[in-house]
Amino acid sequence: MKSKSKLLITGANGFTGQHACNHFSKQGIDVIAVVRNKNNAKINNVKVECCDLTNQTSVKELIYKVKPEYILHLAGQNHVKESWVNPIMIMEANVMSSLYLLDALRTEHPSCKVVIVGSALQYDILQDKYPPHPYSLSKTLQSLVSESWSKLYNLDIIIAHPNNLIGPGHSKGVCSLIAQEIVKTENEMPAKPITISDPCIHRDFLDVRDAVKAYETLFKYGNNNEIYKIASGKSHSLGQLVSKYQSLSPKEVPVTVNKSNTKEAPIRVDVSKMKALGWVPGISFETSLKDILTFYRQLEDQKD
Amino acid sequence: MKSKSKLLITGANGFTGQHACNHFSKQGIDVIAVVRNKNNAKINNVKVECCDLTNQTSVKELIYKVKPEYILHLAGQNHVKESWVNPIMIMEANVMSSLYLLDALRTEHPSCKVVIVGSALQYDILQDKYPPHPYSLSKTLQSLVSESWSKLYNLDIIIAHPNNLIGPGHSKGVCSLIAQEIVKTENEMPAKPITISDPCIHRDFLDVRDAVKAYETLFKYGNNNEIYKIASGKSHSLGQLVSKYQSLSPKEVPVTVNKSNTKEAPIRVDVSKMKALGWVPGISFETSLKDILTFYRQLEDQKD
Repeated sequence: MKSKSKLLITGANGFTGQHACNHFSKQGIDVIAVVRNKNNAKINNVKVECCDLTNQTSVKELIYKVKPEYILHLAGQNHVKESWVNPIMIMEANVMSSLYLLDALRTEHPSCKVVIVGSALQYDILQDKYPPHPYSLSKTLQSLVSESWSKLYNLDIIIAHPNNLIGPGHSKGVCSLIAQEIVKTENEMPAKPITISDPCIHRDFLDVRDAVKAYETLFKYGNNNEIYKIASGKSHSLGQLVSKYQSLSPKEVPVTVNKSNTKEAPIRVDVSKMKALGWVPGISFETSLKDILTFYRQLEDQKD
Repeated sequence: MKSKSKLLITGANGFTGQHACNHFSKQGIDVIAVVRNKNNAKINNVKVECCDLTNQTSVKELIYKVKPEYILHLAGQNHVKESWVNPIMIMEANVMSSLYLLDALRTEHPSCKVVIVGSALQYDILQDKYPPHPYSLSKTLQSLVSESWSKLYNLDIIIAHPNNLIGPGHSKGVCSLIAQEIVKTENEMPAKPITISDPCIHRDFLDVRDAVKAYETLFKYGNNNEIYKIASGKSHSLGQLVSKYQSLSPKEVPVTVNKSNTKEAPIRVDVSKMKALGWVPGISFETSLKDILTFYRQLEDQKD
């Protein structure tokens, strides 16, 4: 991945997208940020292209115009709850838009190297007969069609499955939700009480900036048509998360932690494939939480 | 499946669709035939509705308007060769249109019983890592989303996987292609020479009229979210097919049969699940071939 290489980032306005634009443009990469609506674009110092990725013609025109050497495909819908209500929208946003992108590469620019960002929430067809929700189905099909397109049309496609990404920026994850309420409490505003129903539930949290570096590693060294799990390889319980936040704020953290009924075992995401490519996460869990708090504190300060 | 029940048949203009409209309307079923373009409709004595099934809004309006008790979903694209060139069209026609239909049932009419007609050409995700062609991928995804929608939203969906369907009517199958050339020869017109590269290749041929009866059996007795193979359970080599045709025509059949290099074993499609529901094929291979010849002979006579 040479300096001045053209990298197209879809979903550039999202949580990961903004970090990715920032990281790659600092590396001297020629970043083209794809957003749906230019007026809402929150990205600075990179070129911005508007495109509705659920429109096949628009996607084809975008690829024909930009002809990027790399694509980081982050765009999509990732709301599990919403997927129950509007499953077609989820399928179009996650499956068809990926297909439009890959098929535009097939016809317009087949030499491009693509990282498709899937999800750890996809279900394993080989083990489970049914998906737990439409979102899971959509991400499984996204992987499936990406692998198939790579094989059928000899395209250079790598699939990344990130776990829970955390870090500064607007996110709907649990770390972000708690931090927002902590900052409200610190500013003596009424906080929305959060309840952790089971503190023993374990998650693998990875800083989004480490994930972006993992995507860079995949562009450099990733193997065509392989699936890579992107995670810290470490397990934290939600109870630990709340305690850690408590140690980072002078105020009482507005989270009710229920008593646990179960002792859920820590999870171990196997990240050996990423490590074999030379990638290791560099940001500790504590640093991520500190930076999330700082992000929301600064946001609150700006309001004054 | 009572008399006067409302049955919506998609792909009604197709090879199987025409037979299905004919069969079910004769049973006293209130058939509503869905076609893309009314001007091209080849179906008589049934109600016809126009709908572009790749348009979600149109599909929703159709289901809201008709509220059928049964749907036989035959519509789709089934050209393997074309699927390489226009794979997105195949995915939209086979995957998204099925999803639009099932999702319209979810929101407008969830009590409907649906038979989704898949294909024996779908690949087995559990065994094969990649599909052999985009058509195969599209039919695998069609099954997958149908099973998922049935489970996620508690809809009454049955999946049928027919093998090679043959019989009178316009079809692009090998039995139909050979018959057309035989009839040309019989009428002393120049026939296009057909070459059978390997006479030992085996196929399971089933008469389309038996397949339609199988779909009726599924409406009556089929189990929700089950996949049923629809086939004769008998194997015929392409060499046998040519010999059989030769015995049915006074003229030399214009087919060149290469010498076989391999001895392909007969195939055995397991149709025990269909037989357990009381269905058995009733039309012999020879009768099917005779009826195909009769169809093309009558077509030729009508030209005079």
